[in-house]
Amino acid sequence: MEKIGVHRCFDGQQLRFRHRADSVHCDMTFSIYLPPQADQRAVPALYWLSGLTCTDENFVLKAGAQRYAAEYGIALIAPDTSPRGEGVPDDPAGAYDFGLGAGFYLNATRRPWDRHYRMYDYVVDELPRLINDHFPVDYEKIAISGHSMGGHGALTIALKNPNRYRSVSAFAPVCSPMHCPWGEKALNTYLGDNRESWRNYDSSELIRQASHHLPILVDQGKSDDFLDSQLKPHLLADAAQQVGYPLDIRYQSGYDHGYFFISSFIGDHLRFHARHL
Amino acid sequence: MEKIGVHRCFDGQQLRFRHRADSVHCDMTFSIYLPPQADQRAVPALYWLSGLTCTDENFVLKAGAQRYAAEYGIALIAPDTSPRGEGVPDDPAGAYDFGLGAGFYLNATRRPWDRHYRMYDYVVDELPRLINDHFPVDYEKIAISGHSMGGHGALTIALKNPNRYRSVSAFAPVCSPMHCPWGEKALNTYLGDNRESWRNYDSSELIRQASHHLPILVDQGKSDDFLDSQLKPHLLADAAQQVGYPLDIRYQSGYDHGYFFISSFIGDHLRFHARHL
Repeated sequence: MEKIGVHRCFDGQQLRFRHRADSVHCDMTFSIYLPPQADQRAVPALYWLSGLTCTDENFVLKAGAQRYAAEYGIALIAPDTSPRGEGVPDDPAGAYDFGLGAGFYLNATRRPWDRHYRMYDYVVDELPRLINDHFPVDYEKIAISGHSMGGHGALTIALKNPNRYRSVSAFAPVCSPMHCPWGEKALNTYLGDNRESWRNYDSSELIRQASHHLPILVDQGKSDDFLDSQLKPHLLADAAQQVGYPLDIRYQSGYDHGYFFISSFIGDHLRFHARHL
Repeated sequence: MEKIGVHRCFDGQQLRFRHRADSVHCDMTFSIYLPPQADQRAVPALYWLSGLTCTDENFVLKAGAQRYAAEYGIALIAPDTSPRGEGVPDDPAGAYDFGLGAGFYLNATRRPWDRHYRMYDYVVDELPRLINDHFPVDYEKIAISGHSMGGHGALTIALKNPNRYRSVSAFAPVCSPMHCPWGEKALNTYLGDNRESWRNYDSSELIRQASHHLPILVDQGKSDDFLDSQLKPHLLADAAQQVGYPLDIRYQSGYDHGYFFISSFIGDHLRFHARHL
């Protein structure tokens, strides 16, 4: 594991690493913020999954989360959004919503995607093992959050692994990839056209099957250009209501899809997770 | 004036505009954050001057200042760091430390720079007039801050116009451009080799002549790679001490030159300015 960045930040450390990842068969880059409390003891951690076109850096540079992480003593772990590098296939047309920067936090089953596009395994298993081995992070106190495609990732991963995460939150998540253009393209290409297999990566489906209820907080901007076409939080809300899964979805007036929205409410999300960690 | 960006942020508005600027004979872009208080009344404003290679966006995206601006009810105004566009001359070798992105907040007197490189007039006169005409900002309650080259800009502009600004602060400012490579190159090329004319844009010189003392706060990271070669805060501290100008320079252990440093202390700076606005 190679350290490729280190910066003091709010009396903690903002670090960046590159490492060979077996699950995705390529070098991966991730960022980790260690709050000042990590000098003394193992701290809880929040995994953050970013959206389409992002790397690990967008959240680190733009969300302003370190201030709150330092206050609550929580590590922030931000993986990249897809495998990258020579030999990793990309969308043939270079579209922003598939391939590089668009791993959708799933395990692809169709060639040529199935060798590298295994972001589910990377985020759920390989990266946490690596973090556990190298950093003062309490393996038992883990939460997950994300934005847009990464909100989809956070929700599906937490719903499928409720014993691994204490809480989950999302900003403007893709709530039902089975029912939106971004998701349909990704699921169809990564998994094939058997829609049954898609349910495994759709939080509005997974929430119906949940036996163990995690605390969930979702923020959605009302002026988000993708709200009706791609995100569709009502599908998640309806499913949750049908099965009695408690779900806090907040609609924020005037806010759009970007980091000005995230930075405005990331403090609330850190506070929410801190209560459960 | 053309609005080219609008985002809700901490219940205020992060806006971006492009306009024709007479002082620099080109189109200029600036960002302004209006806190929620601006819906009700004219608010005080902090001008922020960025460093080499930056545009108006770096501070807006990375500093996390809006949170504090919303808390204290202060507008944040971030101009670009140089004139730009067709016909604006650049460093012949494309160096990062001169020409585009490196206006040094002065009025150039040598050709071909003297037509466009008049960032001093733009920041001190033209932009404030425009802001005053179009936004709910209290013209009497103005402060100024900046980073690196922009810290130099903030200090020199405030020292030359102590009745116009209530307070001034800087992160890792270039404290004596007459005595560092970045500054010598810029002053020599924009102003010519008469070093007497350089004193007019050197805060370690200007502070010796100050009759009216403004509150000044400076933060400097101890792990800043440019500390000894370019920034030299001891020259400013020595000059201030010689003339009895009260100056708060804080050396921050472990911090480097970048935005992780700025974001860690921007809250202190906003609080400092709020006390004087």
